[in-house]
Amino acid sequence: MSLALPPDHILPQPRALLGRVAELPLELGDTLQDVTLRGFAYGPPLGSAPVFVLAGGITADALPLGDGRRPGWWQALEATGLLQLDRHTVLAPGTLGNVSDWPALCALDRTDAVDLPRLTPFDLAAATEAWLMQIGCPQGVTWIGASVGGLVGLALALQRPDRISRLITISAGHQPDGWGTGVRHLQRELVRDALRAPWPDALQRHAGVATAMKRARQLGLLSYRGRDELSARFGRLTPTSAVPPIASYLEHNGEKFANHFSPQRFLLLSEAIDRFYIADPAALPAALAPLRCRVTVVGVPADLLFPLALQQELNDALEAAGVATQLLVLRSHFGHDAFLADQVALAELLLEHGILLED
Amino acid sequence: MSLALPPDHILPQPRALLGRVAELPLELGDTLQDVTLRGFAYGPPLGSAPVFVLAGGITADALPLGDGRRPGWWQALEATGLLQLDRHTVLAPGTLGNVSDWPALCALDRTDAVDLPRLTPFDLAAATEAWLMQIGCPQGVTWIGASVGGLVGLALALQRPDRISRLITISAGHQPDGWGTGVRHLQRELVRDALRAPWPDALQRHAGVATAMKRARQLGLLSYRGRDELSARFGRLTPTSAVPPIASYLEHNGEKFANHFSPQRFLLLSEAIDRFYIADPAALPAALAPLRCRVTVVGVPADLLFPLALQQELNDALEAAGVATQLLVLRSHFGHDAFLADQVALAELLLEHGILLED
Repeated sequence: MSLALPPDHILPQPRALLGRVAELPLELGDTLQDVTLRGFAYGPPLGSAPVFVLAGGITADALPLGDGRRPGWWQALEATGLLQLDRHTVLAPGTLGNVSDWPALCALDRTDAVDLPRLTPFDLAAATEAWLMQIGCPQGVTWIGASVGGLVGLALALQRPDRISRLITISAGHQPDGWGTGVRHLQRELVRDALRAPWPDALQRHAGVATAMKRARQLGLLSYRGRDELSARFGRLTPTSAVPPIASYLEHNGEKFANHFSPQRFLLLSEAIDRFYIADPAALPAALAPLRCRVTVVGVPADLLFPLALQQELNDALEAAGVATQLLVLRSHFGHDAFLADQVALAELLLEHGILLED
Repeated sequence: MSLALPPDHILPQPRALLGRVAELPLELGDTLQDVTLRGFAYGPPLGSAPVFVLAGGITADALPLGDGRRPGWWQALEATGLLQLDRHTVLAPGTLGNVSDWPALCALDRTDAVDLPRLTPFDLAAATEAWLMQIGCPQGVTWIGASVGGLVGLALALQRPDRISRLITISAGHQPDGWGTGVRHLQRELVRDALRAPWPDALQRHAGVATAMKRARQLGLLSYRGRDELSARFGRLTPTSAVPPIASYLEHNGEKFANHFSPQRFLLLSEAIDRFYIADPAALPAALAPLRCRVTVVGVPADLLFPLALQQELNDALEAAGVATQLLVLRSHFGHDAFLADQVALAELLLEHGILLED
């Protein structure tokens, strides 16, 4: 993270806001029972100020602006003054299948199950909509979503066109591409292999699954980060070393992830990305025509996972649909992770283009 | 492979040519004992025609123009008339650590060892040089090398500048980059994890290692193939399918590889790529100045593993070194594997530029 907060910066206090859905029917036919919807709010009470929703990656918590003591994963959006918590209410819905969950999923966390309900970003959007209604936010919001958070914003704007008055989608798109789907499929296979393997005992099973989660995360990191960044940060494999310098970066970040994230939740949400489908390319403009929001599509040329070409396709389809849209290019060597690793530059790009000004 | 041979095409007959080295000292300090050098020749006897050497990837056999009954992995270079076997002698040296091996490596194939000698492309070049001398080819050759075969050609031209009169290096470069090194490191970690894991018995160990080799190969495929190719060939994950369409492609190719390739040989040669080092960028022109050959650098814009930028860097450094060089761009959506999957286009590009004409 390139974010350095001034020492006198006062972090905002989040307020936990809960919701509950007794039955949540899913796009592909399953039904979730007894879903607890979690999320947080920052700034003025709901109903007293314009509302901004922040949504990030599948493994993100729902504290993008921190917990009041430590900064969050999108702190720069507030620290740069893009969001102003004296006059903007900021909401962070917990992703369904990660932060927002249900008893059957919690039970799965303790098993080796690989057969899971089929979630899509439309389901994540429906859960967010239920949460927004239950916490008392019926009005149109500005949605700032990166990665799966961008997919969910687009899904929600299609499900309920008056819900989102302004949509900013970053490093997302209208679909994943073949390479990204292949990479995520392989990540899932690594985890499934370990869940299914004939480990001699429970302890070794636990260690084996953790190793697989670590490797899956490492493959993720190689798709999240920019290749020029990796070349610049990590030198070559020297004659005296057994592993290349990138190994310790991959090891550290892989371990951290494996120690705190559930294999089942990872499988569920990784697959949800690959199940995002609006329409085939030719039918896409017609499918997007119901949108009532203005859209800003942000793409990063070094993004390997949701490449700039996908952002251009989305922007073109929106234009063809008659939606007010613009494509902004964030020139960052951090690749897909630029929305985190270069978040000051992202905030400045949005500020520079006056994206969040009321009008 | 996009190669369709005419039905009356007569495949050339290869001739096996063996060599042996009692002691092969390696660049990084180890010494190999009793190395058997294997390779094949096609066309006129050595000494009666100009000699062309073909060298490909780390897992390739030494039969690029086939075994006389089935076509080989680079058949188009002959089928298109780029190489003419009535007046060109074609040699295919077996890669050290794969086709050319030594008793201690064969013994390792039956173990779970992960500690292996450290090979570099300079060692592969030294083994090739020994083979060329022993089979009676002391003269300068035209080297056509793709992927690691390109690295080895460059290494050999530096070791013995009069050995190579013309060097064509395809999808290779003067070094791997950080992303490629990260991908290969992760491939090796997947295999090492399985070699070290506490499997309950030998049968399950065998299956576990084969699964790891399959996953490593699948990660390789995602770096070998072009992303537009993958998007075009494989559709999206449909609501009714459990895995995306790319899964069966990855499964088929991964299994095939896991069933015939030794984990130790894979670790050895994958690492050899990451151990390729000529000089730091500033010192590279001086390090390349001893070259006496003309060079053609071929790059593919869609190559994810040895990207076009690396080919441009090599070409620039060669120019700065005063070496006669040219950069040719092969526009293929097949990525790194274009030298195989688009080999007719490669042959036509070389024909069009008169690369192999005597002068």
